[in-house]
Amino acid sequence: VAGLTPGATIGILGGGQLGRMLAMAAARLGFATIIFDPDISAPAAQTASRHIAAPYTDLEALAQFAKACDVITYEFENIPLEAARHLSGLKPVHPPVAALESSQDRLVEKRFINSLGIATAPFFEINGAQDLQAALASAGGRGIVKTRRMGYDGKGQALVESPAAAAQAWDELGAHPLILEGFVDFALEISVIASRGADGSFRAYEPAMNRHGSGILRMSIVPAPLPGEVMADAVAMAQRIVTALGYVGVIGIEFFVTRDNALMVNEIAPRVHNSGHWTEAACAISQFEQHIRAVSGLPLGQTTRHSDCVMENLIGDDVEKVPGILLEGDAVLHLYGKAEARPGRKMGHVTRLFPRAGEVDPQ
Amino acid sequence: VAGLTPGATIGILGGGQLGRMLAMAAARLGFATIIFDPDISAPAAQTASRHIAAPYTDLEALAQFAKACDVITYEFENIPLEAARHLSGLKPVHPPVAALESSQDRLVEKRFINSLGIATAPFFEINGAQDLQAALASAGGRGIVKTRRMGYDGKGQALVESPAAAAQAWDELGAHPLILEGFVDFALEISVIASRGADGSFRAYEPAMNRHGSGILRMSIVPAPLPGEVMADAVAMAQRIVTALGYVGVIGIEFFVTRDNALMVNEIAPRVHNSGHWTEAACAISQFEQHIRAVSGLPLGQTTRHSDCVMENLIGDDVEKVPGILLEGDAVLHLYGKAEARPGRKMGHVTRLFPRAGEVDPQ
Repeated sequence: VAGLTPGATIGILGGGQLGRMLAMAAARLGFATIIFDPDISAPAAQTASRHIAAPYTDLEALAQFAKACDVITYEFENIPLEAARHLSGLKPVHPPVAALESSQDRLVEKRFINSLGIATAPFFEINGAQDLQAALASAGGRGIVKTRRMGYDGKGQALVESPAAAAQAWDELGAHPLILEGFVDFALEISVIASRGADGSFRAYEPAMNRHGSGILRMSIVPAPLPGEVMADAVAMAQRIVTALGYVGVIGIEFFVTRDNALMVNEIAPRVHNSGHWTEAACAISQFEQHIRAVSGLPLGQTTRHSDCVMENLIGDDVEKVPGILLEGDAVLHLYGKAEARPGRKMGHVTRLFPRAGEVDPQ
Repeated sequence: VAGLTPGATIGILGGGQLGRMLAMAAARLGFATIIFDPDISAPAAQTASRHIAAPYTDLEALAQFAKACDVITYEFENIPLEAARHLSGLKPVHPPVAALESSQDRLVEKRFINSLGIATAPFFEINGAQDLQAALASAGGRGIVKTRRMGYDGKGQALVESPAAAAQAWDELGAHPLILEGFVDFALEISVIASRGADGSFRAYEPAMNRHGSGILRMSIVPAPLPGEVMADAVAMAQRIVTALGYVGVIGIEFFVTRDNALMVNEIAPRVHNSGHWTEAACAISQFEQHIRAVSGLPLGQTTRHSDCVMENLIGDDVEKVPGILLEGDAVLHLYGKAEARPGRKMGHVTRLFPRAGEVDPQ
């Protein structure tokens, strides 16, 4: 695989913070970037070479975008499939549209994962109020109703623990195709940030332990407090998944780890992932550079880390912590250039490396 | 000092690779950036929020730039003083114009350094062919003729070791004000990347050992093979220099280290410095972020490093090494987005961290 050469242009569908960080990683490798995002104040536009602000349904704008790019990628999985398919007829699109398609529907995704012999939480297809009551009973009277499509950061979800709650969830969400996921009493959550190159090469960062609150990632901790063989199992599952998808790029795969260290895939994101932000501070090659390398046909970077670390998301009012974080002096702060700090909005993140300066390394 | 808050705009005079890296560091702290550079293909324009392409003598464009910025800084020291002075009447300019003024004239700079009780190479003001012959004799028959102004990367210099060579250097360079620097038989060259905050706080990275070729920096090596007290002396001298200048921002100070470990200042650059590029790979807070913190009135970051490292410049045809560097997999590559690889042109740099993955740390 020859790969793109410096000066080439990478198109990025989506202009959020992930696109912003991808654009900076691309610049560091000498690439120009074009962000395609309808929002004229898309955070990625500030760090990219160019921004095309048009709807994802504007086929003419998409064609203009494709014409200006050498390769196209995406930074969020709710890109309309039609847009991705249209583009893939014009220029190479990585990761493959098939990965996007699978990840856009929780039911399709879970069936795909199970087909590889990898466990998920028990799940039930819900096409009516009756389905939901029956599924709730099968799941032991407790589960999480989720829209099959367009859910993220805890949106489009409801925990149900009674038939009445199920009925209410149906009233709220039943206009959409749903699934019920059985409740998993997991010990902890981890994620694998893996990557596959155009040549089939595979590299994964060490799994991070994740803490969520209100359905939003709050913190990623590396190393995760798990036996090495559990981590190796998770990475092996990630490899099976990306191989089956013919994947090219970085993928984020969230796992539940049960109290007896069994692994279940929770969710797949066919893109760089919030739980991999720590790599920019603790590794020579970040997940953002790794993704750019993969989609450009360049060799994957190593995924070793030079430090232990904890990444903390800054959500909504958490931005008020910024002055204190700056005073710490050795915290790696990353803000996304968003003007307004709405509740639940990811405004930035901070990664603290360990041992911190002045601490003695216990090794 | 309250400091700028996220969303503020930092103006950067000069749009080369240093401006490019400053713009990315500013974005990571949530700031917008405007590059002022007459070159429409300025490397920094690709990563900045906005680019004003106008001559440094265009007072109207400068005023428009100042109006859009909360604070203004610069990324190269050959900005016309008139432009910097004009801007400083409109918005805060850091580092101070006085530092720019001193660094633009080798004679003024060396006299300033000596006035602080800090050694330089012996130097002689040259205002005519006779001056040069007399100075060469005083310097022991060997020295380097340099233009007082506008020299960089070895340009505007000539090594002279005979009266005939001095006469030839006069013919070539005599149209400009000159100095002769006595030849220093140094053991090695180091640089201190220091920073001073608006509140007078001071922080310096550990000195790097630098290797030059044809007057251009080739490599920076950290740690430098020097006793700790020599490094501490260099840092103390840097502190005296920035204090005397009332400096705000990052400064690069190059030193000769003689065979008996005496220190002489070679050159001061009132900006982020090529010999500090390693900090982006080996420290939590890079020199670029440190500069943005300082000029924004934010607290300085710590300057400790998590790794040993070697930074290598990619100059001209060195870009042909890029595919091999990408194959290394753990080398931190940074390209500048320059289309054409002319001889002597800085195209990028690569930092290798040690111990490398798989190596055993001898500690």
